[in-house]
Formats: sequence, structure tokens, C-alpha cells
Amino acid sequence: MSINKISTKINKGNFFEDFKIGQKIIHPLPRTITQGDVSFYIALTGSRFALHSSDVLAQEFGYEKRPLDDMLMFHLTFAKSVQDISLNAIANLGYAEVSFLNPVFVGDTVRLETQVIGLKENSSGKSGVVYVHSIGYNQNNEEILNLKRWVMVHKKDKSKNSGINEVPTFAKTTTISKNINIPTLQNIDTNATGGTYFWEDYEENERLNHTEGITIDDSDHTLATKLYQNNAKVHFDDFMMKSTPIGKRLMYGGHVISIARSISFNGLQNAQWIYAINAGAHANPTFAGDTIYAYSEVLEKIDLNREDIGLLRLRTVALKNMKSNDVKSRFDENGKYLKNIVLDLDYTVIIPKKK
Amino acid sequence: MSINKISTKINKGNFFEDFKIGQKIIHPLPRTITQGDVSFYIALTGSRFALHSSDVLAQEFGYEKRPLDDMLMFHLTFAKSVQDISLNAIANLGYAEVSFLNPVFVGDTVRLETQVIGLKENSSGKSGVVYVHSIGYNQNNEEILNLKRWVMVHKKDKSKNSGINEVPTFAKTTTISKNINIPTLQNIDTNATGGTYFWEDYEENERLNHTEGITIDDSDHTLATKLYQNNAKVHFDDFMMKSTPIGKRLMYGGHVISIARSISFNGLQNAQWIYAINAGAHANPTFAGDTIYAYSEVLEKIDLNREDIGLLRLRTVALKNMKSNDVKSRFDENGKYLKNIVLDLDYTVIIPKKK
Amino acid sequence: MSINKISTKINKGNFFEDFKIGQKIIHPLPRTITQGDVSFYIALTGSRFALHSSDVLAQEFGYEKRPLDDMLMFHLTFAKSVQDISLNAIANLGYAEVSFLNPVFVGDTVRLETQVIGLKENSSGKSGVVYVHSIGYNQNNEEILNLKRWVMVHKKDKSKNSGINEVPTFAKTTTISKNINIPTLQNIDTNATGGTYFWEDYEENERLNHTEGITIDDSDHTLATKLYQNNAKVHFDDFMMKSTPIGKRLMYGGHVISIARSISFNGLQNAQWIYAINAGAHANPTFAGDTIYAYSEVLEKIDLNREDIGLLRLRTVALKNMKSNDVKSRFDENGKYLKNIVLDLDYTVIIPKKK
Repeated sequence: MSINKISTKINKGNFFEDFKIGQKIIHPLPRTITQGDVSFYIALTGSRFALHSSDVLAQEFGYEKRPLDDMLMFHLTFAKSVQDISLNAIANLGYAEVSFLNPVFVGDTVRLETQVIGLKENSSGKSGVVYVHSIGYNQNNEEILNLKRWVMVHKKDKSKNSGINEVPTFAKTTTISKNINIPTLQNIDTNATGGTYFWEDYEENERLNHTEGITIDDSDHTLATKLYQNNAKVHFDDFMMKSTPIGKRLMYGGHVISIARSISFNGLQNAQWIYAINAGAHANPTFAGDTIYAYSEVLEKIDLNREDIGLLRLRTVALKNMKSNDVKSRFDENGKYLKNIVLDLDYTVIIPKKK
Repeated sequence: MSINKISTKINKGNFFEDFKIGQKIIHPLPRTITQGDVSFYIALTGSRFALHSSDVLAQEFGYEKRPLDDMLMFHLTFAKSVQDISLNAIANLGYAEVSFLNPVFVGDTVRLETQVIGLKENSSGKSGVVYVHSIGYNQNNEEILNLKRWVMVHKKDKSKNSGINEVPTFAKTTTISKNINIPTLQNIDTNATGGTYFWEDYEENERLNHTEGITIDDSDHTLATKLYQNNAKVHFDDFMMKSTPIGKRLMYGGHVISIARSISFNGLQNAQWIYAINAGAHANPTFAGDTIYAYSEVLEKIDLNREDIGLLRLRTVALKNMKSNDVKSRFDENGKYLKNIVLDLDYTVIIPKKK
Repeated sequence: MSINKISTKINKGNFFEDFKIGQKIIHPLPRTITQGDVSFYIALTGSRFALHSSDVLAQEFGYEKRPLDDMLMFHLTFAKSVQDISLNAIANLGYAEVSFLNPVFVGDTVRLETQVIGLKENSSGKSGVVYVHSIGYNQNNEEILNLKRWVMVHKKDKSKNSGINEVPTFAKTTTISKNINIPTLQNIDTNATGGTYFWEDYEENERLNHTEGITIDDSDHTLATKLYQNNAKVHFDDFMMKSTPIGKRLMYGGHVISIARSISFNGLQNAQWIYAINAGAHANPTFAGDTIYAYSEVLEKIDLNREDIGLLRLRTVALKNMKSNDVKSRFDENGKYLKNIVLDLDYTVIIPKKK
């Protein structure tokens, strides 16, 4: 029996040295969205935002049918970048200037392209930070997602140090477009949406302690992450993770965002659209068995000079195994995140005005 | 930094004092049913009733396409009432006069309205029983579900006792309508349904010891319950439940009904429609890791004077971690449910007659 | 109260004595395939083969829309035979001459028929091997699946020995048809498929050590197996399994095939069609908590004399809790499978040629 030749066709992902500023990457694997994805998203998160639950309501809002939940679209589109950008990531460090530009529907096919916009080698010489700008498109080449993020990635050769240090600057909040692509809203049926509060009812610095808690199990978060075709090994490979200090599978941080957003329904029922994510940090890791709670703060009220809708800039904080009532500040006395804080998300939602 | 104002916009659910006899509640969150819901129901329950599995067979039966499994429709519609009726429920005490009136299909949008029909304060003063009558509708305002149920709910103020004691009476079995909305059946292809027994073949007092057992895990029952947008905390919040005497998440009782119904396929293959639920009791709680078995007894044979179909009134009993062969009676010598009994369901199915 | 009559209507499955050579079985439960099944398959396996992920890409390939992943079709069709053939199976011993003849799409309804082609009583007298030939059809009676398999089944009467020993012969590899029903491929967009290697790039004896590992939990494999309506008790009934030497639920071997196939994406991205399964062995059982890895060997390159596509005969070996790099041979010094080997699959894929 001949000795087999070991193939070099296996994609081991990109390392820090593989990225160049200005480099463009077309991520493979366009994804057609199905009715199954919509049901999965509800089953995985318990989401109850009515616009994404009912075609009848969506039609009253002026849509042909219900658009996808923004975070579901985000996950299905974003995940395409994992195999090229973050397969060898040590950590997802942050997001900025994320915007949700056009509605996406069942039957649409989404894809993603990325440009490298910054590189910074760490002083240790073992890793570096890669800054990217990604744009998601539907089958008609309309932009559906626009985002920047930065990840810490392993180096191949830890003995050399290029000293590269080109860090882009990010807007503190995503720029607000003049044209927000949602239909002009007529009367909102609060019997259907389940919420009686509108843009005018919220105040800056108001804090909503959402009451629900959702426990996440291994099958839940791995089904979610596989559904999105995100193949980062830390989420799936328990055998490998057992040989690391962490000792078990890490939950995909995006799933925590979705769970927190779902929990935020109670108090923000009419805030059915995410307009932008301004900044996001996964403050601590989440594992199977953790129960997620969340609270939201109104950071800013933004008037669009549209009669039907306004914006709320929110901070939603997700906690593990600690109720939202039980935390005053997300930081300890040294300015570090409490160990129960798992997500600190600064984002902007669209909410109807009163008639 | 300003001290945040704690919002009062969070819905904490209704307490006993919040309900008034005659009060009408329109439950939010209409739900459009998808192909994903159908696949989920099969994946969650292993259901094999052929009418709900095959469009080709459904067309042979006279439908345009396969109608939804009755219990899937029940869950998706019923769950809308949880946030208004049973978020603060201590226990779901019973169901009566449940009927399934019109078929529901993928693409339909279901919603629910409820009227309070009875109130009874418990002598302890700590809680009370709320009796409600709920009607589910599709997007054409046709009735698809009609049910009564009663739940024990916490009081807000445990020091006062109103002494209210208005208990409605319920029919022992759901009244049988003259017009049963299923097509006139022609020959039934038993090669497709998997069952060779028809209405004439069953005898009153016949007991079917179904053989399959299905073990339920945490992800299963929480995926099911989130899919239905049932947000009762006892099913999802393991952290909270750990501080209760129960110590872990409780399974949604409706999921146990679905599992028992799925297991009952073996012996009742042609009983593909639920006509009514006459009475139901969740005799003991079910937890992740439990294996469900079931047996069914034929309580009554009802002839509709239709040539193609008849009714069987059944009692299906679900057990945990005990095979159906191993239980003679569901009660112990004191007339109490055996601790392995988790469901005692008195319901009526439609089954074709022999040609 | 009357003593209930125990029904004889329960199907206990077939035993060795129930099978006759030449016997034909029409399996019940035709199954209409939904968009939910497609999403479930991705969520359960993490599959990333692009043809099954994108309608846009499928249309570029010449399909009307994306065809079902071959293994998803296999499971949905094959599972129909469980209740008649393998409900009382001790073991699934092997597959041969499996072919995938026509594409299957969402909306199609699949069914299965089987003929018994061999019987061999074991010398112990306690069991026997049943050899069957099954053909799957779509709603237009086109063949979509053709397979032979053999299973070891319990005998009812262990005291008698018929001595039957009629063992069919199987082709070592599935015969290759002249007409392979896939469209004539034009240029392949490798930016979409994620793979730059084509038929010409692979060499016989090349070994691909796929890098991903996927851990499977109880909810995953039981959701998969219930979705397929495979009702073999060993997969679902933990209570029963606890009283066996195995002590817990066994994973459906077909799920392991799907996980291995999904892992094989990395290195075989363009091999988007399974043409045939030549032979398959479930070398060791798989349980919840196991992490699956896989490697593939190119056994044979087959030129079809078509300009657009060729065939690769592959052996994909799945391992549990052992990385593909860490195993040289799947056998130990005595020619027995290593205990970490769970699947040894000899199959043939279709892969485009270079232009």
C-alpha cells in the first residue's frame, strides 16, 4: 500500500502576515434566505418583534411582506467573513459604523465583500490587529449591511516584527443617512405590536430593566452558529477547547447580541428596526448554561424631522447569571467590566412617533 | 454622570387583581406560519401523521396542500395569551371545550383574543384562579381555535381578600358541531398513512400501549417554546429557577401534549385530525432528561352519520421514565396521580371509516 | 370500571422471520420537503457546499433553483424504511450500490419502496441478516435514490433455526451511468464556491486532513433524526438505553455521515454533488459529546469523457475525539478499526473540470 501524499489543499485561514492594507476579499458562499431561517431565528432567540412575526402587520406598515429581523440578516451575511478574516482570530475586539441600509426578505440571496483598512502588530510580536470594512449585498447588488470591525489574529512567524501600526479612526456613532429606507408609517396597531410607547415617550438617561432571562444550552448556540455558516472553531470543537485554558466551547458573541435584543422587546416593543450599531464590545465570554439578562439605557433621542419615526440611541447591556435589577453600573471601581457583563452594545433603533 | 431614571415601561404581566369578569384582551403578536414551523414541529416531536407530512397525500384527501398539525397551530396561537394571562401563573390548572374549527396552512397569520369568564380568590389570599375563554383567528377572521382554560395567578396585594368566587361551568366534553370542516374523504391510501385500522376497528375500553419513548433535552423544549413565542419564565430562566424549590427549568406542558400525540401515532395512524380537547391535566412536571411514554384508551366511539369519518374520544396518558406496559392505572390507591404520570388528556380525534 | 382490553394494533416492527426473499414493501409516510428542512440541514451540520446554499449560484449552474443536499435527500427518503426494516435491528451492517439519480427540490414529495433480496440466519439462531434493495421516488415517480443495505435483525423464535443462507453479491463500486443528470456546467465562480481546486488538481492517494471538528450534543442528533422521521428507538429513548450495556442514546449513523461530509468541505469545496456511495461502515458508535473530525483519501479519478465534470472516488473517514492529523491508518496492527474511527465511507463525488 502506497503512502498517501498529504494534501496542501486545506484552507488554514489567514494569519496576520497574510493581510495587506487595501486588500479586497470576496467572501464565498452566497446564502439564499429561507422561511426556515426565519423560524429558526424565533426558536433560537424567542424574538417577538411583531414586524418580523407577521406578514399582515408588515403589510399594514407598507411592506410587501415581513422583512428579516436585522440581526438575522446581520448573522447570515457577516458569517461569510469568518473563514477569511477571523478563523485564526484570538478575539473579536470591536465593531463600528455598522448600518442596516435596505430591508432583506425571504428569497433574497446575500453575500459579503471586505477591504482591509488597518493593521497593527502587537508589541509581543505574536499577533496583530486587523481592521476591516465589509459590505453586504443582496442579489440586486443593493447594499444591505455596511460595517467595520477589528479582530486580533495570530501571526505565522512570531520571531519577526514588522512594526506596522496603521490604525484607522472610526466615527463615534454611525452617520445618519438622509434617506432611511422604511415605508412611511401610518397608524401603528399597538394591539398587534404589544407596545404602547412611542418615540416621544422615552427620555434620555431612562433605564429599562428588562425582566426576562434566557438560558442558553450547547445545542442552541451551536445550531445558531452553524445556521449562519460561521465556522470559527472555538464555537464548535469541544475536544480542541478542552486543551485550552477556557476548557469548553465559547458562544458566538453575535448570538448574545440576538438574545439581548430579544429580551429588550419588553419595554421597546415598537422599536422594530435596528438602524445602526455604533460600537459593541463582548466584555466577557458566554458559555452554555449561562442565563442572559439585559437592561437598556436611552443615550440619545434623535429627531429625523420625519413625522412618522424617530431614532433612539440605546446602550443595551447583557449580563450572565445576574438580573438587570441587581447591577447599578457595568464597571467596577477600577473602570473594568464586571465579570457578569457579557455585552455592551451602543446602537440606534427606529421607533414610530405618536400620531 | 447623571443617575438613570428607572423606566416604568416594563410589562410585569397581570396579577389576579388586574382581571375583571367580562374583560376582553386582544393579545399582541400575530404570527405568520412558515415552512420552517412545519419542519420544526417534526424535528421537535418526531410526528409522523401522514396528512401533515405530504402535500401529495393532502391533495388526495381533498386539501389544496397539507394543513398544519392541529397541535402546532394550537401552540402558535395559544402562546399569544401567555404574556397577558399566565406570565405570573403558578400553575396551568386545566383546559376545557377546546375545538379545532378550520384548517390552518403555511402562509396563514394567526392571532388570539380572550375574555375573562370567571375569577375565584383562594382562601389563602395569596393567589386566585382566572378562567378565560380564548378564540384564535386566521387572517380572514375565521375561527381556528376555541378554548377555555384556567390558571392560578399570584396576587399583588396578599393582605386583602376580595372573596370573589365566580366559577363558570364547563361541558364535560366539547360540543360536537354539525359541520366538521374537513373534505369528504375518498379511499384512504393505507400504504401512505401507515395504518390499516379505521373507525370501525376500535372498541370502547380498548387500550393502546404505544411503544416508542422520546427523551427530551433542554434545547428541545426551549426551542419549541421560543418558537411559539411563549415567554413564560419558568421554561427559559434556569438561573431564576435555581432559586426555587423546583431547582431547574420546567418543560412547557404543551410540548408534552405534542410528544404524547406523536407517540400515539403507533396504533392511531389514521387519526390524523384532533377535533376537540375535552379536558387536560398536567399531572406532574416534566424536566429535561425525562423520557416520555404514552398509552391511549378509547373512551367513546361517536358516529357522526357521515359515511367517510367517525370520532373517537380518547384518553392519552403520558408517563415519564416508565413504560406504558408497566402502568395499570394512572391513579394510586388514594386516587392521586402516580408520580410518573405527566399528562392526562381527554380529547376527540377524527378517523376515517372503512369503505 | 371495566378492565381494558389491550389492543393488538401496535406495530412492533418486523423480525427476521417476517421477511421473505422477493417480498415488496411500500413504506408509508411520503414526505414533502420544505425550506425548513434546508435550513435545518445547514443548522445541524454546518454544511457550506455553495450549490445548496444559494439559488443565485444554482441558477448560474443551470438549475432552476438550488437542489437539495444529497445527504439531506438521502435521510428524508431512507428514514421511511426504518419502521419496516430496522425497528428491531441490532446493527446497520452496510450499504452498497447507493446512487443519487435525479436532483430533488423544495416542494418535492419523496417516498420509498423496498424489496428483500437476501436472508442469512446467524448460527446462534438468535438473529439474522436481512438484505434489501430500496428505491426512492419523487412525486413524478422519477427515481431519486437507489440503494442496497443489510441489517442484523432479532428473531422472534430463538429456538428454531431455518438455516437460510441466501446472500446476494454486491458490486464493489456503484455502476456509473452514462447519463448523469446534472446541467452542463459553464465557468465556475470560485469566489462563490470558496474552492479553487478542480478535477485535474487531485491525485490518486492524495490525503486531505480536514481541519474542522464538530461536537454533537443530544439535542442536535435527536432533532436531526426526528426531522427525518426515523423512529429507531436506540436514538431517542434514553430510559430504555440505560438498561442496555451501551447505557445511553446512540447517534444515528447517517448524521455522522452528514457531519463528516460537511467537514470535508475544506479541501473539496467544488465537489458539490455525491454521485454514489460504494460502501459504508459505521465502525464504532458515536454518542452525544463526541467531537467529529474527518480525513479524505482520493481512491480513484474517473474521467467521464465529459468536458465539464469528472468523478473522484473518495474514502472519507470520520474520527471521534481524535484529530485527522493524528491518525495514520484507520486500522490497528490486527486489522481492526481503531476505536476512534466511527465511519469509513467509500463514495464518489462529481467535481467540475478546469476550463
